[in-house]
Amino acid sequence: MSKKIKKMPRHLLDMTSLDKEIILFLFDHCQDYLTEAVLKKHSLKKLSNRLILNLFFEQGIRTRNSFSIAASRLGATLLNPDMAQLTTAKGESLLDTIHAFEAMGIDLFIIQHSHNNMASFIAAELHSEASVINAGDGVNQHPSQGLLDLFTIKKHKPDFENIKVAIVGDVLHSRVARSLIEGLKIMGTTDINIIAPPTLAPTPDDIPNIPIHYSLEPGLKEADVIVTLRIQKERMQQALFPDPGKYYRTFGLTTKTLKYAKSDAIVMHPGPLNRGVEIDSAVADGPQSVILEQVQNGVAMKMAIMDSLLNI
Amino acid sequence: MSKKIKKMPRHLLDMTSLDKEIILFLFDHCQDYLTEAVLKKHSLKKLSNRLILNLFFEQGIRTRNSFSIAASRLGATLLNPDMAQLTTAKGESLLDTIHAFEAMGIDLFIIQHSHNNMASFIAAELHSEASVINAGDGVNQHPSQGLLDLFTIKKHKPDFENIKVAIVGDVLHSRVARSLIEGLKIMGTTDINIIAPPTLAPTPDDIPNIPIHYSLEPGLKEADVIVTLRIQKERMQQALFPDPGKYYRTFGLTTKTLKYAKSDAIVMHPGPLNRGVEIDSAVADGPQSVILEQVQNGVAMKMAIMDSLLNI
Amino acid sequence: MSKKIKKMPRHLLDMTSLDKEIILFLFDHCQDYLTEAVLKKHSLKKLSNRLILNLFFEQGIRTRNSFSIAASRLGATLLNPDMAQLTTAKGESLLDTIHAFEAMGIDLFIIQHSHNNMASFIAAELHSEASVINAGDGVNQHPSQGLLDLFTIKKHKPDFENIKVAIVGDVLHSRVARSLIEGLKIMGTTDINIIAPPTLAPTPDDIPNIPIHYSLEPGLKEADVIVTLRIQKERMQQALFPDPGKYYRTFGLTTKTLKYAKSDAIVMHPGPLNRGVEIDSAVADGPQSVILEQVQNGVAMKMAIMDSLLNI
Repeated sequence: MSKKIKKMPRHLLDMTSLDKEIILFLFDHCQDYLTEAVLKKHSLKKLSNRLILNLFFEQGIRTRNSFSIAASRLGATLLNPDMAQLTTAKGESLLDTIHAFEAMGIDLFIIQHSHNNMASFIAAELHSEASVINAGDGVNQHPSQGLLDLFTIKKHKPDFENIKVAIVGDVLHSRVARSLIEGLKIMGTTDINIIAPPTLAPTPDDIPNIPIHYSLEPGLKEADVIVTLRIQKERMQQALFPDPGKYYRTFGLTTKTLKYAKSDAIVMHPGPLNRGVEIDSAVADGPQSVILEQVQNGVAMKMAIMDSLLNI
Repeated sequence: MSKKIKKMPRHLLDMTSLDKEIILFLFDHCQDYLTEAVLKKHSLKKLSNRLILNLFFEQGIRTRNSFSIAASRLGATLLNPDMAQLTTAKGESLLDTIHAFEAMGIDLFIIQHSHNNMASFIAAELHSEASVINAGDGVNQHPSQGLLDLFTIKKHKPDFENIKVAIVGDVLHSRVARSLIEGLKIMGTTDINIIAPPTLAPTPDDIPNIPIHYSLEPGLKEADVIVTLRIQKERMQQALFPDPGKYYRTFGLTTKTLKYAKSDAIVMHPGPLNRGVEIDSAVADGPQSVILEQVQNGVAMKMAIMDSLLNI
Repeated sequence: MSKKIKKMPRHLLDMTSLDKEIILFLFDHCQDYLTEAVLKKHSLKKLSNRLILNLFFEQGIRTRNSFSIAASRLGATLLNPDMAQLTTAKGESLLDTIHAFEAMGIDLFIIQHSHNNMASFIAAELHSEASVINAGDGVNQHPSQGLLDLFTIKKHKPDFENIKVAIVGDVLHSRVARSLIEGLKIMGTTDINIIAPPTLAPTPDDIPNIPIHYSLEPGLKEADVIVTLRIQKERMQQALFPDPGKYYRTFGLTTKTLKYAKSDAIVMHPGPLNRGVEIDSAVADGPQSVILEQVQNGVAMKMAIMDSLLNI
């Protein structure tokens, strides 16, 4: 793992700041960590002097704990303050909190926040040499997820330029979809398709040059990769779609609708799953599903990202 | 500590899956850790590549932190997500959460849940080679507590076949009592007694072949070991007994009622204590109390359990 | 770092239990850790067998995480239970919780509590050889903050006997001010001044022999060190001062009011800041501010304190 890359950015804020060379470098690094650390269940000491701070202002345990595990596999010290501490920090401005943590010696901030561009805003205001990973900002970007998704695709469908990808669901509110689409474009994929009800589809200005389908069959036809997105119940309350049953009948990925795609298509989902809403259990747990592989790859990719930001 | 035992189960779910040979093996292991790690305050590196997940869905800090300390004394990485994260995991099914953690590389799940058999249910559904410790499921089992209680008894009253044990209090709702009674039976103890008000005594079907006393004197008479159980205030609201004062006067262990037992009887309590309800401070802090010894032995026993499940 | 001091107390509960020799010893130790660990971002293994428990019953993330980072830089294992676990520990008495943690092997309790003297009360009741650090008790003492403040002053104004110090704000409710004033007296500072509105000034009995000024100019005149205290919004609800705008106009430290002091005076604040209430951003972020230096020194001082209590 002595490979060096000269233009690794200091922060990981979005996919557009990456290029193909950096992504291929991270793939390489991720594969090494997958083999050496994740599959062999082996902890390294590469970041044993480093302090990492998880700042997760949203609920949820997957991304947060995946970063925690990746940090521990690298021997880093990770602080994981709880939501209650963070949101009631006596009315202090978030920037003052960040600057105090910098002064305490934090090397890397991992930030998940419901506001778009929060991680970028913080990265621009740092006093120290610390790095920032955007672990999800509003409906904007989730680049570590985008990278682990690309890596998972590469393991099954390495010819990025000649695959058809279908992304199904609430793309309008999905930072996962935005990061993946940008990543696919960098890797040369041209046949990217969105399948969504009109109320959950992005506007052409938002995500340009991607065909939008309002039903499953044309979008999934001959697809190599299907990415199913989580339907959030909040959206229903906003009347963006009528009810989960209707959604499932129209856009749910089932053993029947899966047949529109190629017979060896892989099925992805960023989790957590709403079984019986956007995906049927027979598909989620079926032979074409790589959902848990995404989770496993995610730890290795987070190791690769953290190590690259801090050691290059 | 090179002893090997062939039939150590993969999980620790209840006491009935253990036998005398395994329990004696764990006693041995526990004594080693008590001497080498707990009393000498020394941390080992035996599990330095292992990932352990505390999944405590109930409130309470003792068992949870005792497992955390045991894990740290063994050099393992322990993740300790808070209740708020666990219970609001965006509506994901608990099994999907577990499978995601397996994919991230968790080796051992420590599960406390208010539903009976939750740990067994999860253990049966695992995809990986991970182990499960039941750290308390509803009113069913609490085997790590049962084992540390047995070990504490052995230190003072090693002749399990010839001791009289009295368990006082809310046995009906006590997973601690259930695990201890099963463990004592495995060790050959025949003179086990329950002392409880009728509303808090188990039915004969629930815990068979154990005499039930409705007052202290006959149950405590000539006892070698007295186990006082916590009275939970919720039970009062359910009108299962009238008030704490009445309970104390009838079933409270005081310097006076303690005299019914042998003069060298030991007094145990799983904690946390309701002083002045089920036990008087003069007894809890008195010379016959081994309550804090139970806590100390608990760290060593948890080390023995974790190491045995993961290294054998 | 082989220096030894014979009378280092077992606990750090208040400033009055320290003397000049101990404080100079801690300065020395702190400087070593600042250089060796904090600035070089290097983790040591000096406390690798030690168990430290953060017991923070108040909200807030600075002091808590600063102790966590100091512990990790020393290689100790730190347990950090959340507020919800602590305050709902099934009605157990706090002392029973403490004794249970002692039995589990905790070497050092770091306690922050809204009641005066809570840390001293606990220290007096311990069964084991464990130490206690008072990380803030009510409106009484905050000695680790006092020590890091003294260290920060020493770096800029080492001649303690010939400096003028002005403490501005809610001294009545400030444990930070109480610990600093006692520390300054030990170091030989005689020219200490309090500036506060009458409702937030201490009584002469409370903090004797310190002049109290009810406006900024006479208190700040020729000052070398200005310590601005946080105004807590709770105080407003208690009608102790009318509104933040009025407070700012009368007692706020701005580029204009800062000119009353010496031109090389340093500006301190324990954080978190209420910008625009007790301090203007132009001052907080200006060239005379040492606020973030206090935070950085705080990690080194906490390392010095923990190491001294546990290794001497």
